[in-house]
Amino acid sequence: MARVVVDVMLKPEILDPQGQAVQRALPRLGFEGISDVRQGKRFELEVDGPVDEAALARIHDLAESFLANTVIENFTVRIEEVAEAAK
Amino acid sequence: MARVVVDVMLKPEILDPQGQAVQRALPRLGFEGISDVRQGKRFELEVDGPVDEAALARIHDLAESFLANTVIENFTVRIEEVAEAAK
Repeated sequence: MARVVVDVMLKPEILDPQGQAVQRALPRLGFEGISDVRQGKRFELEVDGPVDEAALARIHDLAESFLANTVIENFTVRIEEVAEAAK
Repeated sequence: MARVVVDVMLKPEILDPQGQAVQRALPRLGFEGISDVRQGKRFELEVDGPVDEAALARIHDLAESFLANTVIENFTVRIEEVAEAAK
């Protein structure tokens, strides 16, 4: 069992009102020195069996056709180790 | 200028209806072999100046108090290289 992470972010040229709202709120909350915030989506897919080239290609197709709107969003696909630091 | 990424995911014991909806739709769309999907949020923060221990600690506080609801969500903070593969 492996975990594949798909990150979907708005393209840089697309306005991100959610991120802007966060960024504008930060100084009020006492956090200075952050010049930009972008908010996107993160999908964690648990894949049965090995994650080989073919499986990654399939997940790339899936992300392109279904998880991201490629007109306005970029996405990245990567394998993640499942030993994560939960906080 | 450095980029810090904050990933916010629902805790494993919290139901994730968005992720479940994606997971249930996948076989219909021709994607088999994915046993679970969780959907979360990804924040990209552009930080002015160097990202040292103190800055990371500050961003950790920010994420804890403001970006994540720690009753139901886990979060991770990490520095990301800004050379990213846009697709």
